[in-house]
Formats: sequence, C-alpha cells, structure tokens
Amino acid sequence: MTLDPRQALRAVLAPRSIAIVGASDNAHKIGGRPIAYLSRFGYAGKLYPINPARGEVQGLHCFPDFAALPEVPEAVIVAVPGDAAVAAVDECTAAGVPVAVVMSSGFGEVDAQGRQREREMAARARERGMRIVGPNSQGLANFGNGAVLSFSTMFTEVAPQDGPIGIISQSGAMSVIPYGLLRQRGIGVRHSHATGNDCDVTVCELAAIVAEDPALKLLLLYLEGIPDPWHLAEAAAVARERGLPIVALKSGRSQAGQQAAQSHTGALANEDRVVDAFLAKHGIWRVQDMRELVDAAELYVKGWKPRGRRLVAISNSGAVCVLTADAASAAGLPLEPLADGTQAELRAILPGFATTTNPVDITAALLTNSRLFSDILPPIARDPAADAFVVGIAVAGAGYDVPAFAADTARFAEATGKPVVVAAPQTSVGAAFKQHGLAVYPTEAEAVRALGQFVSHSELIAKAQAQVPALPQRPRAVAAATLLDEARSLALLAARGVPVAAHRLCRDADEARAAWAALGSARAVVKGCTAEVSHKSELGLVRLGLDSADAVAAAYHEVVANARRAGVTLSGVLVAEMAAGRRELMIGARLDPVFGPVVLAGDGGKWVELMPDAQVLLPPFDAAQTESALRRLRIAPLLDGARDEPALDVAAFCRVAVAVGELMRDEAAGIVQLDINPVIVRERGQGCVAVDAVVFRQTN
Amino acid sequence: MTLDPRQALRAVLAPRSIAIVGASDNAHKIGGRPIAYLSRFGYAGKLYPINPARGEVQGLHCFPDFAALPEVPEAVIVAVPGDAAVAAVDECTAAGVPVAVVMSSGFGEVDAQGRQREREMAARARERGMRIVGPNSQGLANFGNGAVLSFSTMFTEVAPQDGPIGIISQSGAMSVIPYGLLRQRGIGVRHSHATGNDCDVTVCELAAIVAEDPALKLLLLYLEGIPDPWHLAEAAAVARERGLPIVALKSGRSQAGQQAAQSHTGALANEDRVVDAFLAKHGIWRVQDMRELVDAAELYVKGWKPRGRRLVAISNSGAVCVLTADAASAAGLPLEPLADGTQAELRAILPGFATTTNPVDITAALLTNSRLFSDILPPIARDPAADAFVVGIAVAGAGYDVPAFAADTARFAEATGKPVVVAAPQTSVGAAFKQHGLAVYPTEAEAVRALGQFVSHSELIAKAQAQVPALPQRPRAVAAATLLDEARSLALLAARGVPVAAHRLCRDADEARAAWAALGSARAVVKGCTAEVSHKSELGLVRLGLDSADAVAAAYHEVVANARRAGVTLSGVLVAEMAAGRRELMIGARLDPVFGPVVLAGDGGKWVELMPDAQVLLPPFDAAQTESALRRLRIAPLLDGARDEPALDVAAFCRVAVAVGELMRDEAAGIVQLDINPVIVRERGQGCVAVDAVVFRQTN
Repeated sequence: MTLDPRQALRAVLAPRSIAIVGASDNAHKIGGRPIAYLSRFGYAGKLYPINPARGEVQGLHCFPDFAALPEVPEAVIVAVPGDAAVAAVDECTAAGVPVAVVMSSGFGEVDAQGRQREREMAARARERGMRIVGPNSQGLANFGNGAVLSFSTMFTEVAPQDGPIGIISQSGAMSVIPYGLLRQRGIGVRHSHATGNDCDVTVCELAAIVAEDPALKLLLLYLEGIPDPWHLAEAAAVARERGLPIVALKSGRSQAGQQAAQSHTGALANEDRVVDAFLAKHGIWRVQDMRELVDAAELYVKGWKPRGRRLVAISNSGAVCVLTADAASAAGLPLEPLADGTQAELRAILPGFATTTNPVDITAALLTNSRLFSDILPPIARDPAADAFVVGIAVAGAGYDVPAFAADTARFAEATGKPVVVAAPQTSVGAAFKQHGLAVYPTEAEAVRALGQFVSHSELIAKAQAQVPALPQRPRAVAAATLLDEARSLALLAARGVPVAAHRLCRDADEARAAWAALGSARAVVKGCTAEVSHKSELGLVRLGLDSADAVAAAYHEVVANARRAGVTLSGVLVAEMAAGRRELMIGARLDPVFGPVVLAGDGGKWVELMPDAQVLLPPFDAAQTESALRRLRIAPLLDGARDEPALDVAAFCRVAVAVGELMRDEAAGIVQLDINPVIVRERGQGCVAVDAVVFRQTN
Repeated sequence: MTLDPRQALRAVLAPRSIAIVGASDNAHKIGGRPIAYLSRFGYAGKLYPINPARGEVQGLHCFPDFAALPEVPEAVIVAVPGDAAVAAVDECTAAGVPVAVVMSSGFGEVDAQGRQREREMAARARERGMRIVGPNSQGLANFGNGAVLSFSTMFTEVAPQDGPIGIISQSGAMSVIPYGLLRQRGIGVRHSHATGNDCDVTVCELAAIVAEDPALKLLLLYLEGIPDPWHLAEAAAVARERGLPIVALKSGRSQAGQQAAQSHTGALANEDRVVDAFLAKHGIWRVQDMRELVDAAELYVKGWKPRGRRLVAISNSGAVCVLTADAASAAGLPLEPLADGTQAELRAILPGFATTTNPVDITAALLTNSRLFSDILPPIARDPAADAFVVGIAVAGAGYDVPAFAADTARFAEATGKPVVVAAPQTSVGAAFKQHGLAVYPTEAEAVRALGQFVSHSELIAKAQAQVPALPQRPRAVAAATLLDEARSLALLAARGVPVAAHRLCRDADEARAAWAALGSARAVVKGCTAEVSHKSELGLVRLGLDSADAVAAAYHEVVANARRAGVTLSGVLVAEMAAGRRELMIGARLDPVFGPVVLAGDGGKWVELMPDAQVLLPPFDAAQTESALRRLRIAPLLDGARDEPALDVAAFCRVAVAVGELMRDEAAGIVQLDINPVIVRERGQGCVAVDAVVFRQTN
C-alpha cells in the first residue's frame, strides 16, 4: 500500500497513535518532552514509547523496538541521534508509517554531507509514501486535540490554550515566540508547528493542510526562504476559500539578513520585491518583524468584515486626537467628518469647545461628567460615514467611571458590528476594556497601525479572491542562455504583438540608403546588429539623429568600422526610424529560479539601475493589474498628463507589458531574460513603441 | 521690584512657598489634588490654601483671601473658574508673585474671546514681571523636590518615583502618558509638566529651564506647534552644553493631524519638513509616535557614549539572528564580521555548525549546555570591531540557566562599557535580565530600533555640537511682497555672487540683434521681462534655441506681440545665452512666518512639485552642510558621475545655495521668496549657472 502523500501528512495533525523512538523518562529531554506534553495536554490516541533500555517511561509501557509495537502507528517521533535516526526512519518507511517527525539534529543544518543524508532519507521515504517532518524539527503541536509532538520549552513556560490561531515556521523559536506573545495577551493558539530542515514537508506544504482547519481564523507563517511558492499559493487558495487570512513574516529582507538566513537554514536568497509581489498577489499580508506578526492578531479573530477605510476617532484628549489623526493618515485611514446630523447630536451633548467633526474630542470635561462618554456613542454608532473606530482613553482612573466606559464601548462595538480598537496607556484602564473582550493597545499609534493592517489585508484578500491568482508552476531549470541580436529580438517581440520601431537589417551601405528611403522617417538611427554584446553604445555601434541618405550611409560605415575595431561580429546593420514620444518607460523580465517569470515595468532611460522606479508584476497579469502597478510608481502623476504635457498612452504600454508577461510564461519561447528600454510612450491614443530590446533565450 | 522673567519662571520648579487659590478639601477636585500631592510627595516649602468658605483644607490652615497670607508666595496655583481666575491672577500680579500656574479653563481653548482674555491677562502680568503658566494647565510636577503643582489623575493611578527623565507638553494627557509608560517599565521620572494654553510661558521656554536640571539624562517634549523656535533652540543649546539629549514628539505631521491640532490648541501649521530640519539642526531627535517617544528612554539614562554603529548580535536562535540582521540593516547598524581571533575562540567553544561571524548563533546547543553563553561573552567583549550589542534569548526556561545568562550579560555590559540591549519575548526571561538593570525588549526589532535611535541621536548631537547652530531670530512680519522682473532678479543674485546666464535687457529689435552679437553664444533665448507674471512660458513670452540675429529679432517681435495680447506690461526683452550643462538642479527659498529663512535645494526641472526631490536647509549653513544635504537626494548617485556622465560641479552649486542662504538672512535685502529653477550644473570644475529666477521682495 502506498499512501496519498497529502493524506499521509494530514495524519500528523491528528494521529490516532504515536510512537516515540528514543523515549525518555526525563520530561526535559527531547525524547521525554513530547510524552509529557501528549499526556498533559489531553492527547486521546495511543502512545507507544520505544526504548530498549526501559520497560516503562513516564508511567507508560515502553516497547523495546519498533517491531514490538501492537500496530503500525500513524505518526512516529524520532528522537534518537545520528545514524540511529536514519535507521529508525527507514524502519518507519518499511513498516508503512504515514508520517515521521524527526527531531534529531546533525543533518542539513550541520554540513553538506548532512544535507545529502537527509535528502536520501526523504527520497527513500517518498518512494513508499511516507512523509517526513524534519529532521532537526522542534516538532508539531496541535492544542485542538492534544497532538503535541513537540519538545519546545515554551509549552512548559507558557500554558497553552486552544484558540483560533495557527503558527508555522521552520525555526523552532519562531514557531513558539508568536505563541508566547499571543498567549501573554490572552489569545488562544491552536497550532504551533516547527518543520526543521524541510527535507520533505515544507512550511508551505504544511500550511496548505493547516489552512483546512475550520476552527482557524488566522494563520501566521515565519519564512526564511520560499523554495516552493506553489505550495504557498495552494495554502493561500485553501485559506481564501474559507476566509482564513494568512500573515507572513518573511525574513532576509536585507543583505545582512539573507546572509544570516543562508547560515541558518541555507535559505536560497529570494529577491525581496518579488516576495512582496508574490505574497500580495495571493492575498498574504507581509509584516516586517515579530511585533507586527502578532500585533493585529486580535482583530482578525473578531470576525469583522470591514466595509471601508473611514475611521472615526473618539478620545477625552485633544492631543490623542491629533496623534490618532497622524497615525490614521500614515495607515491610509481617512478621518472624514461625521454627518451633520450626528454632529448636531454631539454638540447637544458635549461642551461648546469640544470638537465634534472627527476626531471627536470629549475633552477633559469627561472628568466632571463620566456620562458624556456613553451619551455620545449612540449617535456615532448610527453615523453612516464610519467604517471603523478607535477609542482613546488618554488618562482615567480616580474620578472617572472606567468600568462604564468599557461596558459602553463593548455595547457600541456589538451594536455597530464594525471594527473597534481601544488605545489606553494605563494598564488598569486597558484591563477594564480587555475584560469586555475589546482589542486594547497602549498607544493610538499601535491601535491604528493594527487596524490599518487588518483593513488593508481584508482588501488584499478581496482583490486576490476577485482575480483568483493561478497556482505557480515549478519553474524549469535553465542551464545556459544565449543573447539574441537586436533584429531577432525585435522580430520576436513584434510576433507577440509588441509595436517595435520600423527598421530594416542591411548588409551594405546601399541597402542602408534604400532602408532610409523606405522608412520615410524624419530622422533615423543606425545600429550594429550583433548577438555578441548587449551594450552597443559604449562601442560606438549606435548613431542617432541621421537626417539624410548620405548620413545614414556614412553611419553605416562608421558602425562597421567600430565593430571591426572592437572585434565584434555583426549580423548586419539596422537602419531604424528614430521614434519620438512623450516619456521613456521600460519593461524588463526574467525567469526567477524559484518564482518563475517576473516582469518589471516602470520609468525608463539610462538611470533605471541607479534611480529605480519600477513595479514587479507576476505573470499572468492583465492590463488593469499593470495599470494599477503603474499607479504606484513615482512617476504616476505624469501618466494622466501634468502641466503642459498630455496624458500618456498607458493602455498601449499595458498591452506591451501583458504581452511580455505571456511571452515569459510560454515555455516553448524559452525566454530567460528580456529588457525593453526604452519603450517610448506617446500621448494617449497614439500608442507606444519599443526601440531597443535585449533578449536572452534558453540555450537548447 | 520687577523680576527677571527667566528667574521668575525658575521659581515654579522649586518654589519656597505655594498658595492655592480655590483650595478644596476634596483631593479629587482641581483645587484639592495639588494640595494632596504636595503633602503626599514630600514638598518641604510653605503651603497656603486660599478659600473664603473654609478655615481648614485637607488638614492645613486655610486663608480667606490673598491679602491674608503671611508672605508673598513664590508660586500661586489658580484653581477658580472664569472671572475669578482673572481677578486672582491680577491680584498675584499686583502683589509681585513671581509665577502663577493657572489651571482654570474657559480661555483660549474655548473661543477667540477667551484667547483675547488670556492675552490681556498675560500682558498685564508681563508688565510687572510675573510669569503665567496656563491657563488651562494641568500643572507642573517636580518629583525631585515634591513641587507637584498638578491635578493630573495619573499621579493617583501610577505612583511616582524620582528619576532622570523630564517631560514637557502643552497637553495634560501628553505630559503624563509618557510618565505612565515609563513608570510601567520601572523608570523614574522627575519632571512632568503641562503648560496648557501657553499664553505666556511656552513648552519651549519651560524646556530651556528644565534642561538646566543637572539630574536629568533625557528630556522628552510633546509639541503640537512650535510658535517660538528660538526658545526651543535655546533649550537645545542648554541641553547640549550639559550632554542632555532631547527627544521630541511633534504631532500634526499629516494634514489630518494639523487640522486636529488646530482644533485642539490652535497650533499654527508648521511645514513638517521644516520642523524635521530645525529639530535635526539643533540636535533634537524627532519621533513619530508615543511608542517611540518612550521606547529608547532606558538607553539614554545608562550613560553610554556610543563610539560607532557596528552591532554584534548574539542569540540561541538562528532565526532571531536573521531577524536581528534585518532590523540592524533597517536601523543602519552594520553587522561586521568579528575579528579572526575572536571567531577562532568562539569556534573552540561552540558546536561545529554554530555561526561565529556575526551574528553569533549559539544554536539550540544552549539547551544542553547553558555554559556556552557565559563562555562566548569574554572573547566577544574583547573584540575591537564591536560598538554595541544585542543579545536575543529566543526561548528559555526549564533546562536553561536563565539567571546565569542574565548575570553574565550584566557583567559583559559592565566590562565593555558599550551599549547592550536584550530581546526576550518571554516575560519570565525578560524579568531575569531586567533584575540586573539591563534594557530588555520583547522582540529584536524593538531592541534594535531603540538602539538605532540612541546611536543616531548621539551622532546628531555631536554634529550639532560641532556646528553650534545659531539661535534663530524671531522672524520679521511681512505684510506684502512684490514680484521683481527677471532682469532685476538676476541682477540681485549676481550681486550676491551667484553666476547667472549672460543676458542683456533690450528695448527694441536692434538692441536685441546687438545683444545677440555681443553674447557670442551659439544659441540664445529671448524672454519678455515683466514684474507682472512669474510663469512666462505659458503666455508665449519665452523663445528658445535661437541661432541667428534674424531669429533673435523675430523672437523679439513675437514676445512683444504675445505680451500685448496677454495684457502684460514688459519692462523690456531679455536676450540671454542658452546655457548648457549636465543636470538641471534648483534652489528655492522662502521666509517662514515662524522659522524664518528656509532654503530648499534639489533636483530641478518642470516636475519639482509633482515629483519633488529636495532637501531643506536652514540658514546659516555652509557648503559642507549643503553637500551633505545633496547626498540625501534621490539623485545623489549622479553627483559624482555615473555611467558615461561626468561628475557634477557640486561645489559650485553649494556656493550658490550658501549665497542664497545668506541673502535670505539679510533683512535689508527683504527677500520673501525666491526660486532659481533651473540652476544648470556643468561638469566638475566648470561651474553652474542660474538661467531663470523668480524673486518676491517685501513691499516697503
């Protein structure tokens, strides 16, 4: 019998029986902790400790070896070192165990030999349908059913509580640090999984299974590398299907971080902006650090469906109102004025100098009249212009009816059904609001930032749901690539519908003269056509602004002479129209070894490397997606025309970008890298034209 | 006797006697709280409650009125409402009281009438040398001597403890929220002052006095507006003199925030980038929100003198190392490899697969051998390449010798004398390190961010100390300004040493022809010269690229005709050389109503508004400061030459910027606004030239 590999992996989240190879009586040893945890956290299945040296382990009957077990267990924890671990895994493989969690270290994390050993072990297992989590895994913990196959110290230090959050990470630390931070806030965590060296099961594949858990309301991932984006895309699809948001902390943003990741998990460096684009496309929110990973968690689990970004702020401090407005601007949450009717109601309640537009400043009058707070909430709750709320209690305590504020805010949140966050710097005040199940942050900045993330993420998910991103393919491996000459490059693009500058490939000066005549253009360009170098200008192989047949013929001779001097073989000389337009943009593309085709669209010209202004697009994408990417460029204000310049033909440029995206997806075309710089864009309705192209194609 | 106004204000921080007008027996009323606090927090001076209705207040003898007091008190708290408050202040003024703290509300925070009333009250007081804090002030609190003239609820809720930190704010909330957040961390706060409506004493002037307190190690400011930058500059000078860092939270960064600030304190909108430049120039660190205001406080009070930015990271988790590297990159703290000798020592201690370069990853081996931690610290302490350290304890507890880790880290910090921050997500682990006086943060991101702020701020202060910024003048008020025509604008600049394009003002076509001949330039420009409009191109008043006397003459007639058509009076027609160069930069300047002269230098051309790339410079500044500002531009990579383009004559451009700065400082010149766009910059050694200038001068 070979198992379905996905089904086999599912067993690890809810195994009916678990064997522990290397079972220990000491609950603080790797082979002892899982047994202690499984017993303590209510695991209801069968438990089979294996240790030839003991008859009993932690009060359980202990088996001398695998063969002695009464049944083939559904999951096996391997907690013996080195060669013994490999032998145990092979034994599991042979016995038809669905999944093994290998905690033993000394494999890929140590050296290349270890990596080779774990690869071979995984290959043997895969042949028989057994899945391996690890090696070097801290283990998996499911507090929903007590299947805590983990030796993490954290579960001894911080008591678990089942809840709507799942966490998956290669690193043991990063599987439990978010757990610890969330538990400190009183939030329950169901899954806390550390996959270790990922020799078989990866974080992303495990995520695709964990995302199936209907109890989850938020899935958190820590990633140092994304070697298998297709699994992550699958997890995202499963999650979107059931409205489960995924938030990812992908480290190695910086060069220093990538070096450290390379030392730590051997993570392949991912280009960071491609990671950004990939995660966004699939509706996964990317955070920058551990603080951000956990800070908005509470909002996700409330079940709110935000309908917009308009924020209403309420505080008893004008300064909190000001800081809240700043934070809201930074988060892109506009503070629109409340409806006239609402303001009139508020004015009838609050003192004359209070602000009733938005933010609503109750002022220090709250100290003398605690009822002001509860009185203003109903009119605000009825205001149609509010999508979310932040309540900032600057200072309270003696003289204030804090319990009433908290109860009223909870009723208000219940009544509106809209997201409400509370900012309260005083621990005692915060505690009163937390008691009512409200999301409380010490400062308005943190409250608004978390709310901004939650609202923006909801929008990102909705977009991904509307566009249904394709699951990426495992990209083909490319051994070598060959530069095409410009004539072939332009022909290839033209065949895909990309408008290219009119040109003719000439073999002598007479052909060049004839080409000039045929072009009928005011000015021409003469370029040496070669597959040997991509930067032609530096070698004197380009002559611009030629305005007569004689000038074209002379340029022909110059270019040929310069090529000879530089030792460059020409496949001919191009005579091309000198295209004019309003702005030089550019489109680049390459085949990422992990993410596959990647397209870059942005401002063009000679400074694209030194002063980049481009956006990443992952094929397939359409014109609308291209345009929305262009709207994020620095040069975006120019697209629709500005000052005395007309609007650009953005639609024409988008069509070129889409064509390049399709070309990159076409495996038969075999394009590895492509740069069209500039794409000269004319004013709206007049198109655009590629005047140069550098294309590298896979060597057959 | 009239008092020195500054000396009078000093009395409020340590008054030998205090009267309370409107004294209350209820310790939760405005007139009662200060009495309760003064008694409770150890104020040693004389206390005179005043209330005609009571013989005793909170156990103290109560006086019926001001006249009944046995002496003129050094400070008076006014806690009676409305007209009574004004009367009380006037009585204080008459009696020669040095300073009154007016807690009464109903003044400028309510309406224009109230603002007028407080202004007049302040004017009367000023005449007699009395200072007023407030009105609408929550009061001042000095926990160093118990002079707590405040009614803040916070001091009831969170017990004070004298410490090395001072906080000043207009807003009552913002004077105590940082207090509360710092006290939660166990940090002592000496000063917590709320100045209210600032009708006389402002936050910034009070800061200049509080900065004199030798016990302070950090001064925190909350500002909604900066109406008196000269006071803030003075405070900064006093603080730099004694090595006291100032950190400021200036809100109203965003338009929404400025609107809210306008409603709250009537704060004049400050241009945010000018605020940035001003604070930086004076060595004041600006933070974005309340979290940042307090997050690095602990580092400031340690007395560290950072010598550089090189960070060494140590953790028992590879993932923490990766995240730390990312955070360090974001904070501009490079992780340079440890010395070879250090690495060799570490390799001898740590397991083979541990990383010893930097970050140093102890790995999970720490669980089996807690001594690894203390063993690696001495070699790292000896490494000369380290300026600061971050220790990340990912997970610890059962099985780890956490107390030893904490003690060893404390010894290590002591031995190196260099900044050390700790990241520990587990409360229990963090507590162990805190017990040893170490600065602990839950995540590496927060620890590194705080460290980055502390190190960068130290550098900023050193720069301000080296450059000794001048105290800004109160800027002159400008009623109206007049546009100069281009000829006069260019002449004005030329007289200040700014190279301008060769030009001649012509009255007829023959003069234009003669000017063309005299210029001896390949191409010329013809421009209508007028003081009526600043944007000439749109009206057809500019003709470019003229290459003959005839063309110049024809252009002359066109420009004159177009001016007539547009109804624009010309003072003549300019014939100018068409200057060429490598890059168009720009210099702008204006007289800010609060900050005075402000210069803007950056990339030029037609998109300066839509795609701005400029830096603010506050005169006086020198060429070196200008160049360092240019190095922060987006176009900075082009300054030294890139690809086939030569280096620009940055020095020549900087000379122009400095000349403009000096011109703006010259009150006699009366320049209100000035735009030179473009300044055409040639390659290095060949200078630059202003080809157009728009100057507005004060109308006499």
